[in-house]
Amino acid sequence: MVITSLDNKEVKYLVKLNTKKFRDSEHKFLIDGEHLVEEAYKKGILDKIIVVDDNYSFNCDKLIVTKEIMKKISLLDTPPNIMGVCKMMDEKLVGNKYLILDRIQDPGNLGTIIRSAVAFNVDTIIMSNDTVDLYNSKVLRATQGMIFSINYYKGDLVKIINDLKDKNIPIYTTNVNNGKNIKEIDDTSCYALIMGNEGSGVRDEIANLADTNIYIPMSNSCESLNVAVATSILLYEMSDK
Amino acid sequence: MVITSLDNKEVKYLVKLNTKKFRDSEHKFLIDGEHLVEEAYKKGILDKIIVVDDNYSFNCDKLIVTKEIMKKISLLDTPPNIMGVCKMMDEKLVGNKYLILDRIQDPGNLGTIIRSAVAFNVDTIIMSNDTVDLYNSKVLRATQGMIFSINYYKGDLVKIINDLKDKNIPIYTTNVNNGKNIKEIDDTSCYALIMGNEGSGVRDEIANLADTNIYIPMSNSCESLNVAVATSILLYEMSDK
Repeated sequence: MVITSLDNKEVKYLVKLNTKKFRDSEHKFLIDGEHLVEEAYKKGILDKIIVVDDNYSFNCDKLIVTKEIMKKISLLDTPPNIMGVCKMMDEKLVGNKYLILDRIQDPGNLGTIIRSAVAFNVDTIIMSNDTVDLYNSKVLRATQGMIFSINYYKGDLVKIINDLKDKNIPIYTTNVNNGKNIKEIDDTSCYALIMGNEGSGVRDEIANLADTNIYIPMSNSCESLNVAVATSILLYEMSDK
Repeated sequence: MVITSLDNKEVKYLVKLNTKKFRDSEHKFLIDGEHLVEEAYKKGILDKIIVVDDNYSFNCDKLIVTKEIMKKISLLDTPPNIMGVCKMMDEKLVGNKYLILDRIQDPGNLGTIIRSAVAFNVDTIIMSNDTVDLYNSKVLRATQGMIFSINYYKGDLVKIINDLKDKNIPIYTTNVNNGKNIKEIDDTSCYALIMGNEGSGVRDEIANLADTNIYIPMSNSCESLNVAVATSILLYEMSDK
């Protein structure tokens, strides 16, 4: 049966999943397009698919809708032929390599950072409670499917960083004026790197917990790099040694 | 005199500068906010300022408008207190370090790439004719004022690359399957790096002109990086030797 009415109860439920509050209360989120749906399916968190044409064979619940309904559910300008409803991933704080994000606000930046963190072998991404929502549609798209390939943890950064320090994880953050060239860091088998907000950087109370300040050598003509670029270059350098 | 009417001839002219076609025919473009205006002024390309309050002292023509008019001229959600009208920069193909962009489409990516190119000492950015417009408002913002600190050249990439080859500039592009690790490139005093479109990469006819294919070492879990991130990591590695 193809659902054609915007008043349908299930359609209304799906549209509401576009708000963070409802996602959090339901512990579910939406994804757009075949690539993300396939990745979620492999990960075992795909609950249901929403399709315009019934030509997909995922072993899960299915909802067939009109293009108009799909347009209402998806936030994309051009709605996809398939969407998915996923269970939120469990939070885990594991491994030897941590990326800590203090109030990243731009969804494109967070998604790009996640993609790079997977590329450069980060184990867990730790986010302050006021970082942009991981399950925001723009974040999910910018990860290019990498969202499911890494662990996440959200919480009070001061407490989490102190716990990592107790486990002897060296804590790094960036400081252009008073830091060590990233190329001079030798042992990066185990680290936690703190990166901060696009405009204001890492809060002082968080930055003060770092053991070592580092910087990326660059031209004097340029004050700073985009935060996703800076994070990626640092993770690239730290993945390698 | 404060201009209050949207029908004012000059206001209509400024609004039209938000289209690429009109910018190209007038050889002028708009910038938002004090930081960009200051940078354009230093560079000597600031023609006129548009302000809500008359408390700026740039030595150039000035137009005082209401907040409503500013909102009409600027593409920002929150219109700035000051905008500028600038003369387009002259195109120049100079130096030893070139970044060649084949059909980059996302304005945020182009702006971020420009910012990184300044940071890592690129002399000239060369763009295919179908690359997103340099003077697009989102590009300008993403450069964070770095737009004025580098040279630009736009044209037919095949012809330009062949000219660079005649000058013995080594040409690089990326190839994950058949390339050399970027860390193994020794002499980067002189280079041209070709980067391509977000979805489809560099066109074959352009990529075939490269002398050396390079890649960024990364985890097998990740197929590729965001193009602004990949470009920045390569420029970072090549700036250093």
